[in-house]
Amino acid sequence: MTNLDLATLRSAVEWVDGHLEVIDQTRLPERLEVVRLATVDAVVDAIARLVVRGAPAIGACGAFGVVVGLDEATPTDRRSALTVLGDLERRLSGARPTAVNLPRAVGRVRRAAAAGRDPADIRTRALAEAQAVAEDDREACRRIGEHGARELGARTRVLTHCNTGRLATCGIGTALGVVYTMAARGLPVEVLAPETRPLLQGARLTAFELTEAGIPVRVLADGAGPAAVAGGLVDAVVVGADRVARNGDVANKIGTYAHALAAREAGLDFYVAAPLSSFDPDVATGRDIAIEERDAGEVVALRGARIAPPGAGAWNPAFDITPHRLVTAFITEVGLLRPPFQKSITGALGAGATAH
Amino acid sequence: MTNLDLATLRSAVEWVDGHLEVIDQTRLPERLEVVRLATVDAVVDAIARLVVRGAPAIGACGAFGVVVGLDEATPTDRRSALTVLGDLERRLSGARPTAVNLPRAVGRVRRAAAAGRDPADIRTRALAEAQAVAEDDREACRRIGEHGARELGARTRVLTHCNTGRLATCGIGTALGVVYTMAARGLPVEVLAPETRPLLQGARLTAFELTEAGIPVRVLADGAGPAAVAGGLVDAVVVGADRVARNGDVANKIGTYAHALAAREAGLDFYVAAPLSSFDPDVATGRDIAIEERDAGEVVALRGARIAPPGAGAWNPAFDITPHRLVTAFITEVGLLRPPFQKSITGALGAGATAH
Repeated sequence: MTNLDLATLRSAVEWVDGHLEVIDQTRLPERLEVVRLATVDAVVDAIARLVVRGAPAIGACGAFGVVVGLDEATPTDRRSALTVLGDLERRLSGARPTAVNLPRAVGRVRRAAAAGRDPADIRTRALAEAQAVAEDDREACRRIGEHGARELGARTRVLTHCNTGRLATCGIGTALGVVYTMAARGLPVEVLAPETRPLLQGARLTAFELTEAGIPVRVLADGAGPAAVAGGLVDAVVVGADRVARNGDVANKIGTYAHALAAREAGLDFYVAAPLSSFDPDVATGRDIAIEERDAGEVVALRGARIAPPGAGAWNPAFDITPHRLVTAFITEVGLLRPPFQKSITGALGAGATAH
Repeated sequence: MTNLDLATLRSAVEWVDGHLEVIDQTRLPERLEVVRLATVDAVVDAIARLVVRGAPAIGACGAFGVVVGLDEATPTDRRSALTVLGDLERRLSGARPTAVNLPRAVGRVRRAAAAGRDPADIRTRALAEAQAVAEDDREACRRIGEHGARELGARTRVLTHCNTGRLATCGIGTALGVVYTMAARGLPVEVLAPETRPLLQGARLTAFELTEAGIPVRVLADGAGPAAVAGGLVDAVVVGADRVARNGDVANKIGTYAHALAAREAGLDFYVAAPLSSFDPDVATGRDIAIEERDAGEVVALRGARIAPPGAGAWNPAFDITPHRLVTAFITEVGLLRPPFQKSITGALGAGATAH
């Protein structure tokens, strides 16, 4: 087995030859199609239709979208450029409501660009800042991977959930970043990937990107995850996070909670790999996190074909809450955060705020 | 709301006007199609292709299959009729390997028929015994429903798993039998039905038969079951069983274990509704139950369409084991069996063996 070369892996959102290019994730795994987004409408549409998904990837896509918008509008003086920037921030930030990364990243680029002297300088600063957004995410992924690989050691049989890899970030990912880093070190890592109904990010995206990288992956029904944990097929569970509360409660893709319960029952460690940007200091506990309930059609139909009878209702929460007491540790870019989480999270966010 | 009339419900396997009729479950929920099985080949094929599924329904189908076979062969003397019976037992019992109900029911009909004086008497006895097999199951379901409804009381929001109703038995079902009985008593029962990947028996079959009976049902991703339990949407969890060990460990459709863990965590009762015929006195614990691992294609494809990339593997166990310590009680035709299960199960099986 040759070690995986992380430098050869393409990620979801890239700035190539003066253009924004993204992988169309709605086509995977049938087709790996890179699309060039040449207008702001195309960027907004790509985010809304989940062509690009994963909070960090969406943030970077919006950030580069500001540059796309400046190139499209070609303002001729500083004043009109600033007007364009304000308009771009509104349009791009509203492309999707949930991920805080999107308005945060777009706002960061707008502020940096607004300091420019003239349209050319504004465009230069916007691109530099968007690249910094992507680079910060890439670097956070790299560090999460290193901290996680050190923590996991010889525990190479990993159960994860949903997709937290190159398709969800600008780098090697969070939970999958740990997996990639282990593979790069020549460890015989192998992944169990629950399919992640309703939208099948595990079967479609995680299985795709791991297979492409030569890492063995087995897909299983979501309900089989706890049986895999109980049955001795798993050394550790590593998942990502959509939002982490101050006390360490974790909102993550629906189905995560069951794996956490099974891990505790089996005496296995349950890790949450997430950058500090996923921690929300404004939220005290999981009870304060509003859970997005999505369209019933995602559950009663499957890739377009109806599976339940017309009279049946549906319940389709996008996320569940894993209580902090089931979490062994958070794997972040500043290292492992361990219980008591109230203290370790507050400490890391304070240090992180200073460092950034 | 009018009370549900249980007498109007059609079940999966019925003997109608001298013919064996079954609901083709592969067509549900798109089409409710009743097919007449006029040859032994047709009966074997229906069981093998899951046109008929659910251990009790398969047993009854095989039992009536003996009558179908006698009608097809039309033996002219007692000796040739006995030869036909022996051949029928071999062919029908082997239609599917797992459910113990199938060989047990077919053997029971063969033995009863073999006592006949002549071909006509043999045929009469075979039909009477097959009808007794179906009637015993119908009666067990009825009693399970009554015991369960009494136990659940006002706890009307039920989470179940897979399909355990009219489509899986000759009667109103086991876990769903409890639900039907509550509805027949005018209770405002409502069901949360995890879709039950990979074969979607929850979304396709449970949602279908409950909707048809006018009972509100909501389908959810399997991974959302534990969140529903934790989130206060459920009063009790009631599932069926494929096999119960002497100590009370339960083999049931993959995904059951997660709901059991979530129920204990939330302080909710977790019931297993099953006839005594599902209890296996030859098996000491769940560790001794061999778990059938099914074809990878069921996981990497979804109703014919591939969802995972070609290089991905799969893990596809049909069942998981829920340890007895997570079970509140078994709802059987002889009443509730409570911990310590070793004692209550042994006692019930002894009494049941006497009664049958």
